[in-house]
Amino acid sequence: MNKKELIKNIYKKKSFLCVGLDPDLEKFPSSVLKEDDPIFYFNKKIIDSTKNYCVSYKVNLAFYEKYGVNGLESLRKTIEYIPNDFFVIADAKRGDILNTSKMYADAFYVNFNFDAVTLSPYMGGDCVKPFIRDGKWSIVLIATSNPTADDFQMIKTENGIPLYMEVLNKAKAWGSSENMMFVVGGTRPDIIKKIREQAKDHFLLIPGVGHQGGNLSKIAQYGFNNEVGVLVNCSRSILYAGKGNEFFKYSKKEAERIQKEMSNYLT
Amino acid sequence: MNKKELIKNIYKKKSFLCVGLDPDLEKFPSSVLKEDDPIFYFNKKIIDSTKNYCVSYKVNLAFYEKYGVNGLESLRKTIEYIPNDFFVIADAKRGDILNTSKMYADAFYVNFNFDAVTLSPYMGGDCVKPFIRDGKWSIVLIATSNPTADDFQMIKTENGIPLYMEVLNKAKAWGSSENMMFVVGGTRPDIIKKIREQAKDHFLLIPGVGHQGGNLSKIAQYGFNNEVGVLVNCSRSILYAGKGNEFFKYSKKEAERIQKEMSNYLT
Repeated sequence: MNKKELIKNIYKKKSFLCVGLDPDLEKFPSSVLKEDDPIFYFNKKIIDSTKNYCVSYKVNLAFYEKYGVNGLESLRKTIEYIPNDFFVIADAKRGDILNTSKMYADAFYVNFNFDAVTLSPYMGGDCVKPFIRDGKWSIVLIATSNPTADDFQMIKTENGIPLYMEVLNKAKAWGSSENMMFVVGGTRPDIIKKIREQAKDHFLLIPGVGHQGGNLSKIAQYGFNNEVGVLVNCSRSILYAGKGNEFFKYSKKEAERIQKEMSNYLT
Repeated sequence: MNKKELIKNIYKKKSFLCVGLDPDLEKFPSSVLKEDDPIFYFNKKIIDSTKNYCVSYKVNLAFYEKYGVNGLESLRKTIEYIPNDFFVIADAKRGDILNTSKMYADAFYVNFNFDAVTLSPYMGGDCVKPFIRDGKWSIVLIATSNPTADDFQMIKTENGIPLYMEVLNKAKAWGSSENMMFVVGGTRPDIIKKIREQAKDHFLLIPGVGHQGGNLSKIAQYGFNNEVGVLVNCSRSILYAGKGNEFFKYSKKEAERIQKEMSNYLT
């Protein structure tokens, strides 16, 4: 999916919501666990209930790899089930030497047909360059929302800027705003503002809203550019909004609530 | 496998060689491609031919994920095939928020029964802490051997040290030399020396010998501690040492050659 199509979908649905499909068997209602493929069943129900309120789905690879070959099979079925007009992200945080990154790019873009992959930049440009392909997207970690993000990302370098800004500056040269996005945690609007100042045209993928406490209004205020330029991911707060056999009704309600708030910022 | 057992194996076999199982269909002899499961067949032949000369196998996840569910099935069979007394590493370079890293740790330690996983530290301690488990090993990227490693790892911080040294200093506190190793590229002996000075008791996993040009004698000179403390990984130079139906004979010869050189440094 290209940038123009993504933006069109955002305005059409009045939503910049990305739903994170992080299936955790320990949180599943007992009725779901009785299904042949509980993960796929759960995801289907979530997709059916949320697809009117979001433009993107993000799949966290760890939650599938945990179950080995069977987990990957559930993942494959999930990707196939997502309708074509959604922007589908592999949240994989890969990053390796050139020939290995090429293999990962084949895995996610070709084998699983994802639109985008999240990438961890510690090994430099080699991590990212093989992921730059026509119609596909590299989503580079810049400033994450987790408690230990500061361990390294906020360290000041001898250039007087934090490491995350060094990463942003270099990453911009590896691709363009047509094939690269940046991950910025939703819990720190001040950082979103700084990153937006340095990356005016790029989409930002912003997790950390909901369970982690990020504020949607602040994200819109500091993150938007003149083409929206923001995808906000919610996982746990939607997936596990309610318990019991009809869990998906609560997920639907929560996705709708978020979409309604988002529509205010889009007008 | 614990540290004592690993060191015992190194002295017994007079080898600190880790063979990297990075199966690349494009490099396979045509006869291998006719097998039911070419990847597993190739790996079996390599394991049979090299097991007398190495103490460890390292599996690069990208080379299996590229082939989706089938690739993971070949991986599972490969891990099962490796004899029990080998130190088996998942070269996965994972690193994510705490609850996701926990899922990855389950995937690699429990589902696939690996001894160790390589980890990328950009997101800080959260990437690593869930991987600290009894009898298991976190192998943290410190200074890698790829051409763009310098993009960030060598940037000096305001503390006057390069980023890789900041990572080393923090990582040491996340675990101990009984459950943590560090990745240091084999092409830069000066960096190996500096890292060894700061991490006297930790094992170093050193790739970059063979195809990438690292020098074994320099690695032993600067990397060894009084318990050896080094695993050297070779992948392509062993796997693709020769062509044709009897490729594995060339792999055996190359592994034996490396082991013989290693035995000199161990006396």
